[in-house]
Amino acid sequence: MEEKKFSERSIWKDAQAMLEKADKEGVQTVWDRRELQNPGCTFCQGGTSCHICSMGPCRVIEGKVGKWQYGVCGADVHTIVARNFGRFVAAGSASHSDHGRDLVETLSEVLSGQAPGYSIRDEGKLRALAAELEIEGAQDRPLYDVAADLVDEFYDNFSSRRKEVSFVKRVPEQRRAIWKKYGMTPRGIDREITEMMHRTHMGVDNDYASLLLHAARTCLGDGWGGSMIGTEISDVLFGTPEPRMSKVNLGVLKEDHVNVLVHGHNPVVSEMVLAASRDEDLLKEAVSAGAKGINVVGLCCTGNELLMRQGIPLAGNHLMTELVIVTGAADAVVVDYQCIMPSLARIAQCYHTAFFTTSSKGRFPEATHVPVEPGNAREQCRLIVRSAVQAYTKRDPRRVLIPDKPVEMMSGFSVEAITKALGGSLQPLLDAIVSGHIKGIVGVVGCNNPKIKHDSANVALLEALIRRDILVVVTGCVTSAAAKAGLLVPAAAREKAGADLAAVCESLGVPPVLHMGSCVDNSRIIHFAALAAKALGVDISDLPVCASSPEWYSEKAAAIGLYAVTSGIPTHLGHPPMILGSSKVTQLAVSGLQDLVGAHFLVEGDMEKAADQLEGIILERREKLGI
Amino acid sequence: MEEKKFSERSIWKDAQAMLEKADKEGVQTVWDRRELQNPGCTFCQGGTSCHICSMGPCRVIEGKVGKWQYGVCGADVHTIVARNFGRFVAAGSASHSDHGRDLVETLSEVLSGQAPGYSIRDEGKLRALAAELEIEGAQDRPLYDVAADLVDEFYDNFSSRRKEVSFVKRVPEQRRAIWKKYGMTPRGIDREITEMMHRTHMGVDNDYASLLLHAARTCLGDGWGGSMIGTEISDVLFGTPEPRMSKVNLGVLKEDHVNVLVHGHNPVVSEMVLAASRDEDLLKEAVSAGAKGINVVGLCCTGNELLMRQGIPLAGNHLMTELVIVTGAADAVVVDYQCIMPSLARIAQCYHTAFFTTSSKGRFPEATHVPVEPGNAREQCRLIVRSAVQAYTKRDPRRVLIPDKPVEMMSGFSVEAITKALGGSLQPLLDAIVSGHIKGIVGVVGCNNPKIKHDSANVALLEALIRRDILVVVTGCVTSAAAKAGLLVPAAAREKAGADLAAVCESLGVPPVLHMGSCVDNSRIIHFAALAAKALGVDISDLPVCASSPEWYSEKAAAIGLYAVTSGIPTHLGHPPMILGSSKVTQLAVSGLQDLVGAHFLVEGDMEKAADQLEGIILERREKLGI
Repeated sequence: MEEKKFSERSIWKDAQAMLEKADKEGVQTVWDRRELQNPGCTFCQGGTSCHICSMGPCRVIEGKVGKWQYGVCGADVHTIVARNFGRFVAAGSASHSDHGRDLVETLSEVLSGQAPGYSIRDEGKLRALAAELEIEGAQDRPLYDVAADLVDEFYDNFSSRRKEVSFVKRVPEQRRAIWKKYGMTPRGIDREITEMMHRTHMGVDNDYASLLLHAARTCLGDGWGGSMIGTEISDVLFGTPEPRMSKVNLGVLKEDHVNVLVHGHNPVVSEMVLAASRDEDLLKEAVSAGAKGINVVGLCCTGNELLMRQGIPLAGNHLMTELVIVTGAADAVVVDYQCIMPSLARIAQCYHTAFFTTSSKGRFPEATHVPVEPGNAREQCRLIVRSAVQAYTKRDPRRVLIPDKPVEMMSGFSVEAITKALGGSLQPLLDAIVSGHIKGIVGVVGCNNPKIKHDSANVALLEALIRRDILVVVTGCVTSAAAKAGLLVPAAAREKAGADLAAVCESLGVPPVLHMGSCVDNSRIIHFAALAAKALGVDISDLPVCASSPEWYSEKAAAIGLYAVTSGIPTHLGHPPMILGSSKVTQLAVSGLQDLVGAHFLVEGDMEKAADQLEGIILERREKLGI
Repeated sequence: MEEKKFSERSIWKDAQAMLEKADKEGVQTVWDRRELQNPGCTFCQGGTSCHICSMGPCRVIEGKVGKWQYGVCGADVHTIVARNFGRFVAAGSASHSDHGRDLVETLSEVLSGQAPGYSIRDEGKLRALAAELEIEGAQDRPLYDVAADLVDEFYDNFSSRRKEVSFVKRVPEQRRAIWKKYGMTPRGIDREITEMMHRTHMGVDNDYASLLLHAARTCLGDGWGGSMIGTEISDVLFGTPEPRMSKVNLGVLKEDHVNVLVHGHNPVVSEMVLAASRDEDLLKEAVSAGAKGINVVGLCCTGNELLMRQGIPLAGNHLMTELVIVTGAADAVVVDYQCIMPSLARIAQCYHTAFFTTSSKGRFPEATHVPVEPGNAREQCRLIVRSAVQAYTKRDPRRVLIPDKPVEMMSGFSVEAITKALGGSLQPLLDAIVSGHIKGIVGVVGCNNPKIKHDSANVALLEALIRRDILVVVTGCVTSAAAKAGLLVPAAAREKAGADLAAVCESLGVPPVLHMGSCVDNSRIIHFAALAAKALGVDISDLPVCASSPEWYSEKAAAIGLYAVTSGIPTHLGHPPMILGSSKVTQLAVSGLQDLVGAHFLVEGDMEKAADQLEGIILERREKLGI
């Protein structure tokens, strides 16, 4: 393959070098498979194929009469597209929320003494949460008693008897009224998911608008429910993030260390792998094996979790997960669940890399399965690290290529950390927004997608926004893009941001792009927005705040987009979801929602134009606020 | 259209007459749409298209190398087919279970006095259930206190903290051990559904076997959870069915009455429509409008609910739901949810028929929405019936055609009724099985599907089975087929059954085919099987018991099939689900499951052959039992 092609696939040198190596070594990558699949089915692409019952499968086209007008059941194109999209975001919501439940379970087992190695690391956060949720004696009763009540409260969020999930309390009153009006208030996290699946069964909900309103409710149950619970309990168990420096790109792998990559989403696994890697006896084994130590590095969102809380370096984002194995220096890849390409276990077989699955929910036929649960995590993660040391001895130095030097970055901007950095209140930030030094805030989040040159859109949008004096917060796979582009260091303010934003950042000593966590941590962004709205006495939809996911790929990203928009945050997507087959569904998404919830989706592939549009919305909102 | 064609579409004269009328009046039916959609996409048909993330959509073909070998993420054909099937049955399970939850909510509102018109009609059943679930003082404490504990217990079945759903208690110990061994014991109903959606997200579960085992767990949470709760609380609220006579086919419509059709699944709606139709003032209004009365008749499963408990006649099954409107004598169609073809509301617009939706979960753009909830059902259903009377005045007699005379049938065979008919114990039935007078039992259940000549397979299989001295139990849309074929009357035993079976049926005065209810009531069949197995001291998979769904179409039917098989009941399908694209998934379904759970799927389109195969399994099991 020509070199030119590698540079068309990713903007990064480390990626390009690995693409070349993969090509030479005959390793198929996600870009290769994308080329083989392209073009996809136009029906599926438009969301207009249906296989939800066995009278079909069916295909429809809007505007057709006769053939392809209706599915066998009589569903029209709008019903079919809305049903497919409803299931798409239900799966995204389910993923975040099932992850959140795992955290509740872990905290519960800590309390019953069945989770050796785990503990409540942030008592203050736990008590603050309990106080916020009006648990009696939150500050005074014994810690475990309060924690037990919190566990009860959070478990109850997944059940069927509530009128709303706990953190609806955090939402401004005006927004809650809108949700109530349109039947969008999330009751129970699992309940909304189940009802979404029920409504999309043949012959249940046939009104695209009704389907999409419930899709919104389902996603709000994720954002203000499953995801938010996931974030908050992770902080309780592993510590609330604070600003700290770290490093990013494939250069964080160390040629003379045992390299253990953690990939997936659940810190319950990755934190314990990290702990095991610091055990004296295992370090000795590593040295006996000829290594200088054990180097745990992160990928994807569990990488973000370790980065935010422990400053562990990040090897890369979604499209780097195959390439990190191609370095030949990955001794072990340890995964839990979500966004772990099935190809990874096969690629690991092309190298000496040991590939471990740890969750019963996420099996790979080619992997070594070491089940990790709160009760056995300590021992199982030691076993995994020991196996990584053994794998290191099989590493073939002739096949090792670690490209590039790591880039410096700053991480750890939880809501608590931001508030602390501002001197204990959001007021200085709000003042900067009111005064116009900061024009507004955009959360840039999400993934990579081989349809888009790797990280090109992520970086282009980030740079375009800060140049316009818009403060950016990032999570998930955009983190790695921002960091590699040098945007997550304070120096980036002067180098890349507009003068006004640069001045604010320099006075605070923070970068113009703040890293807020993993993709479940988008809950931090909406929480942050709610706090700002409440402080200003307005709705979230009044704030000069937007969101974007330039290179999204996953059902989770779509769920995040829908909960952001219905929380009042206009959201840009770099490419459209599979809804374009229905003009009504599309129209509702990109315009109709504005009338209902005061925000809508924007789809734009050109990042300068996208930045213009986001800036336009921010300026419009500022004008309405009279600032 | 030629007359010949109508007779190719359905075996029934009433259907054929309406197909001819629809054709003349320019009404498009489900058969027309099926022809327009045929042939469907072969990828979708095989389950090998994937649109669960926006790196795709993708298509794969087993055995291909290069193009179409892997999805963009790297998923192979087995992963993709298993994921699609997992979501298919998750939606089916969600539908039954969300219905079950609605019943729990209704009972709960009865207890708090917020459901005027509803009551606990079967106190004995409620206390028996409470006793079975080890609720203290089940027989002695005040009824509402016991009921409140039962509500708590059932709500808890939808939550996240249980190790198993309540009715796992009903399952023989041997079976429970198998479920435990393979991680198939359902914990919480919603939890399993959410986890199924999570596992099928990109990069979670990539092992087809692991995916399918969780699919089984999800379905078992339906069969022994959501569906069973739905059945049991429906009995508590509306009465446990007892044998009674009724009538079936389009002839149950009355030319001189206001005809109100109830369609869907939830008796909370249809029972109240029935009650309203008996109100004196509304009857007077009907008479003033020139009618002789108000005739409530059932369609589909809510029709089965009214038929089982109240002896209300059944107008027809799934493929009759459009045709009943074509009679021109349907003054109102009242629907709740599931299996209500989107075409119905449009067809109603071609006639004077008023079309009412009642559930917020099931909206139709062309319908009149009258929201019915436990709190307002009494008044709202009166409103609906009043509107039906008004619609009657607009009926055009020249467009009315009620074909055929109704056929007699017997219904009401709940487990309790069967036990009672046998003199208080299942022993006489078990004796008849052991002695060989009854060779075995097959539950024939499910739907219609325009891919198969309407009811041809249902009736053919029923007749073939009873001819072989196999007792049949039916639920759902097969009920109407059995009844129209004259199989649901005691006289059918002598006319159609083998001599041995006929003798048993005649001695008991029952038909050779017993009607056990709606499709959630398949829970009665597995409960019945569990009771029989426990009485014989064996596992369900040892019993000479099978199941079949000759003309299934829905995701619910697939969920039922999977919970039947994993409960130990071999299950025949008249046509395959969308899994044939993967040899491994197919192999597991039709053979591999045998080693795991002692039962498997059979797919056979020829009903004589299917009957032979089912008989073969029954004889083999008899031999193993030594009977």
